[in-house]
Amino acid sequence: MAHKSLGEKYLLGSGRVPKIVDHDERRLELVDATWRIIARLGIESATMREIATEAGFANGALKPYFPTKDTLLTFAFGHVFNRTNERIAEVTSGLSGLAALRAFCVEVLPLDEERINEARIVIPFWQKAINDPGKAQIHRESMQQWLDAIRRHLAEARDSGDVSTAVDDDSLAGQLLNMLLGAQIAAALLPEGQTDLGLDRQLEGFLSLLTR
Amino acid sequence: MAHKSLGEKYLLGSGRVPKIVDHDERRLELVDATWRIIARLGIESATMREIATEAGFANGALKPYFPTKDTLLTFAFGHVFNRTNERIAEVTSGLSGLAALRAFCVEVLPLDEERINEARIVIPFWQKAINDPGKAQIHRESMQQWLDAIRRHLAEARDSGDVSTAVDDDSLAGQLLNMLLGAQIAAALLPEGQTDLGLDRQLEGFLSLLTR
Repeated sequence: MAHKSLGEKYLLGSGRVPKIVDHDERRLELVDATWRIIARLGIESATMREIATEAGFANGALKPYFPTKDTLLTFAFGHVFNRTNERIAEVTSGLSGLAALRAFCVEVLPLDEERINEARIVIPFWQKAINDPGKAQIHRESMQQWLDAIRRHLAEARDSGDVSTAVDDDSLAGQLLNMLLGAQIAAALLPEGQTDLGLDRQLEGFLSLLTR
Repeated sequence: MAHKSLGEKYLLGSGRVPKIVDHDERRLELVDATWRIIARLGIESATMREIATEAGFANGALKPYFPTKDTLLTFAFGHVFNRTNERIAEVTSGLSGLAALRAFCVEVLPLDEERINEARIVIPFWQKAINDPGKAQIHRESMQQWLDAIRRHLAEARDSGDVSTAVDDDSLAGQLLNMLLGAQIAAALLPEGQTDLGLDRQLEGFLSLLTR
């Protein structure tokens, strides 16, 4: 991620002087526009022109940021992943073991409209990744990070005695990660307006299986 | 599914007389061709022309079977689902409880090249279903069938004493189904030539969590 200069930050905060273009911020505006368009039309129907219009950009003004819809989708995936990780960092701060693991999962699970929309970004990315080794690698590296976090919390929970199952942590972490991914699909394909899949109850159930 | 007439069946079995066109069989040939093309090029790059060529059809000859790529994808999803269910019926025949549940999961999990290719059909279908209520409903109904089967086996396993966890069967079935779905994503995005995700060990681990 490129760093904003102090000048850019200052000018952005002001609002009375003409803005220096903040490229990071414009990219995020585009990602937000992409999101709304994808949620409405689907990834295939969303043209670069429609995304530009939705974001209030002139047609053609997108090119310097994202030469193709593909680069935009990859950026959007990265953005969803980073944003989820920021939320995770916030909610797990000061926690460890089972409490940290629970907070981690709650942030990844599609429990509200916002995170269901995130699932709707992530599934098209997965679909593209099937035939795009670069995207598939981004997916695998992201998931490796999450597996590591899950295993760390499991190890802490064993230390404190909260987790005592004979099943090894690699298997548990794999189960939990696959469960979190599968939940994205179930949530993205819910009927309009529905958001409740009983996922929090499922999560509690799973965590309570670990305490023996 | 349309029924073959006796005449069609007889002629297909013979081979020396000119074949009466068997529409079901031709549809399946097309699905197999679609598969190979999707595995090679991805769903977006696969044109109806390429699918026709791969299946040995004249260009335009696909139209009577599948007017659009979309109808072909829906049929392919249904075919994967039916085929998986046929395998499930075979392997669970005569089994019940935990043994049936294990056999069910093994058939759904992407443990070999064939089932990883099936995952590569199913993910594009999910992606389409995000903005296509009809497809989303097909997905939900299919998953409901699987949830029912999982719950039935869990109930049997409780009767026999093999499953004794305090966690309710709805939660367990939801966990297991999401795990099976998540595994499809992980498998479809493995690097070329890799098939091992440790999913059988994960499954054994999960089943052993239920026996308390």
